[in-house]
Amino acid sequence: MYKFESIKLDKNHPQHLYVQLYKMIKELILLGHLKEADRLPPVRAMSKMLEINNVTVVKAYEILEKEGLVYKKIGSGTYISKQLINQLNEVDQESKQQTNIRSQLMEQGHIKVEKNMINFASATPSADLFPVEDFKQVLNEVLDRDKGYAFDYQEGQGYYQLRKILKDYIFHYGIKSEVENIQIISGAQQGIDIISKALVNYGDYVLIESPSYTGAMAAFNSRGAKMIDIPLQKDGLDLDILEKKIKTHKPRFIYVMPNFQNPTGISYSPGKKKELLKICKNYNMYIVEDDYLSDLNFYSEDNTTLKKLDEDELVIYIKSFSKIFMPGLRLGFLVIPSKLHENLLMAKHTTDISTSGLLQRAFELYLDKGIWQQHLKYMEDKYKERFVVMKESIKEYFPEYISYSLPLGGVNFWFKLPKGFSSKELYERSVVKNIIFAPGNLFFMNNNDEGYFRLSIAAVNPSEIKYGIKILSIVIREYIDKRRDQRNDSLIKPIL
Amino acid sequence: MYKFESIKLDKNHPQHLYVQLYKMIKELILLGHLKEADRLPPVRAMSKMLEINNVTVVKAYEILEKEGLVYKKIGSGTYISKQLINQLNEVDQESKQQTNIRSQLMEQGHIKVEKNMINFASATPSADLFPVEDFKQVLNEVLDRDKGYAFDYQEGQGYYQLRKILKDYIFHYGIKSEVENIQIISGAQQGIDIISKALVNYGDYVLIESPSYTGAMAAFNSRGAKMIDIPLQKDGLDLDILEKKIKTHKPRFIYVMPNFQNPTGISYSPGKKKELLKICKNYNMYIVEDDYLSDLNFYSEDNTTLKKLDEDELVIYIKSFSKIFMPGLRLGFLVIPSKLHENLLMAKHTTDISTSGLLQRAFELYLDKGIWQQHLKYMEDKYKERFVVMKESIKEYFPEYISYSLPLGGVNFWFKLPKGFSSKELYERSVVKNIIFAPGNLFFMNNNDEGYFRLSIAAVNPSEIKYGIKILSIVIREYIDKRRDQRNDSLIKPIL
Repeated sequence: MYKFESIKLDKNHPQHLYVQLYKMIKELILLGHLKEADRLPPVRAMSKMLEINNVTVVKAYEILEKEGLVYKKIGSGTYISKQLINQLNEVDQESKQQTNIRSQLMEQGHIKVEKNMINFASATPSADLFPVEDFKQVLNEVLDRDKGYAFDYQEGQGYYQLRKILKDYIFHYGIKSEVENIQIISGAQQGIDIISKALVNYGDYVLIESPSYTGAMAAFNSRGAKMIDIPLQKDGLDLDILEKKIKTHKPRFIYVMPNFQNPTGISYSPGKKKELLKICKNYNMYIVEDDYLSDLNFYSEDNTTLKKLDEDELVIYIKSFSKIFMPGLRLGFLVIPSKLHENLLMAKHTTDISTSGLLQRAFELYLDKGIWQQHLKYMEDKYKERFVVMKESIKEYFPEYISYSLPLGGVNFWFKLPKGFSSKELYERSVVKNIIFAPGNLFFMNNNDEGYFRLSIAAVNPSEIKYGIKILSIVIREYIDKRRDQRNDSLIKPIL
Repeated sequence: MYKFESIKLDKNHPQHLYVQLYKMIKELILLGHLKEADRLPPVRAMSKMLEINNVTVVKAYEILEKEGLVYKKIGSGTYISKQLINQLNEVDQESKQQTNIRSQLMEQGHIKVEKNMINFASATPSADLFPVEDFKQVLNEVLDRDKGYAFDYQEGQGYYQLRKILKDYIFHYGIKSEVENIQIISGAQQGIDIISKALVNYGDYVLIESPSYTGAMAAFNSRGAKMIDIPLQKDGLDLDILEKKIKTHKPRFIYVMPNFQNPTGISYSPGKKKELLKICKNYNMYIVEDDYLSDLNFYSEDNTTLKKLDEDELVIYIKSFSKIFMPGLRLGFLVIPSKLHENLLMAKHTTDISTSGLLQRAFELYLDKGIWQQHLKYMEDKYKERFVVMKESIKEYFPEYISYSLPLGGVNFWFKLPKGFSSKELYERSVVKNIIFAPGNLFFMNNNDEGYFRLSIAAVNPSEIKYGIKILSIVIREYIDKRRDQRNDSLIKPIL
């Protein structure tokens, strides 16, 4: 039983106990602590040890068996299967239907995740981190309080009380705003979409960082915008190139993520933030700041937003709660310059009239009760733990020829393969080992594969990170070392 | 007390008892059963009569007082105020902020509704009709069942189980579809938006009915489409003009509402439905069918959808649940031709990635438990009652020079003032009497005011309908008869 002593179940955790148990045993298998033909403890012994119901253990074992991770011998017990990784890539009914569009989704930066994959591709948190019980409570309170009104159309600009409390919320981050400058949106992607509708006409120029967020590029592209990408340096945008492009193309705005940028993890230096604002003021150009993660600051001394520094109402600020809250809620907000208020409201109306009133009301109560602050702290701790394990695993396992610079916060790590190697090919080799990540070409306007790739730690727990980086390192070595050997062979051996 | 005998409270109703009581007393005032200086029963007498708590009565009286409908005399009692209508147009804090954009919203077909207005402008149901308790129950069940997964990103195409049950649902309406041809959307407006993104490029032609739904025109316009409007006749589109326009402009699609059209209430004849499909097949052109209300059929012998008749995968079918369910949920679906599946999914992704998973899961359970069918029946009864009261009130009160043809179902009634009179001016005169409706110019591409106006019965209860039509008739007579008198005066009197 000693191998199973590390299993600890949390009865207060939102996840069912049998799911917790299933996941922990699976981890033991993935990490190699349980090997082929090892026997799982009998149901009764396991349930006694963990002080849980027999049925809970049976259910956990059943899922493991269904996934082919274990098999039963009648009258003898439950054993670990062999050929683990190959058996893991079973797809569910839904994804079977959709495999034909996987490649196209990839082009838009959307990767089909199948069951049992270690998912370094997703930059949104795993379901087990969601504050389900708390949110259930506020939902019920709202329904009891507001009855049918909770289901009515909400003001296009958003539920007034929510905008009011958000005003106070951002004030803590140094952003001063009036209630009427806040526009509720159904997630950050919608924010980008309605900003495009309000500001971009067919053929207008828009500036982006290079590399940038795929979803934003798709939205600008869909509006018929002409995009110009400005290279990122270690401390932010290349401002010389920026200024040249502004002069020649008179773009409508620049779209940036100045803290823990996606995908690179780069943070702008305080100097570059100020300089960027100054340049945009000189040329009277708007800045769209996508603040998707500035809260998750671990080591940076400066995670100031541009909006905080914005004295001239140049910044359109997008804030999503997806990364640290619940992506499925589809909730976020904009802080907008007064001038643009009406245009953006019109664009919102054309897009979906209004965001779900029920969810807005529930989220308002969630903020009002201070549960948000607790959850934020909890998520910071969780992410920090993952961040540290990630750093250590990279150091321990990754070959030295993989180049990267560590971010100071956020969830994204950005790497580069040696020259001449393809991150798409690495992806194809990893996916069959059930490890997925985001190939770098997705984040470049020209879609070029220059060997970059992004690993996110949002949807993977610490042991998955460790195991995943270990396996990925093997895949990298198999891909690169062998190829190099062959090249060396071809150089050296002909004369033999 | 005899005047108050009609008050009946429903303890099982989702609305709070004090709100019910407040509304009923207000109705008595609006209908003229309670007049200036009439005294309300003392709190104890009222609570005893209705078998409710004193506090409930106090709360109801407080709201009435706050709204200026009644006033208190210390030591004497609570009395009905005078100058009712003028005192009713107090605006709340939120709308004060937004008055400056009212005119612009009007241009987009969005009318600012203030408290205490009789709202013939809204085509969505009032909050008290929402099945709050039932929905609360399924929400809780989903949260207990799915935990954090309920808050995760959903498949862009929509929650699989929901799409599956919707497939069966539309089968009852004669529409055959595969699960993969169903795309979940955050309401019908988003459906129109993503169809535009998938199919319309800058400068493309799109056909619409004349008049048509304002939100659709705004979405097409936002895409840079060139719209051509095809006149509606009593039995549907003018097909001769349609065919000519198809030949000359090769449009991307035509956007239609063949049953109880918005705003006119017109239903296409079975012959015209078939003919429309035939023409579109000949020219290989898509039809976007916005089925916003075909369920609410009261007197029509044919509410067949075009999608049901569609044998060639030409129809993109939009179905919203807003009109008969809960607008605040922001939920609907598309049934799409297989060819367009991937394009639409990409457009959905660019727009908001996915629709709230929590709401999708809850709605799936709601359908699965059969509560939907009960609610649909309930709403049909409610709307039919309103429909009948509307018909009768129009006959009783409207001057004979207002022309209209009655719809056979749905919630919209379409009228025309005599030649030379303006529906915008009628609107300005009505709004000060706290009656609002949708002026007809909103529904025409050229925004011309030719005296049309739309009254919807979705957000008004039977006594509001009766009272509202009565007052509106007075406003109409004041506007038109006086003007006519003046004209007659100017013709007749000079010789005196």
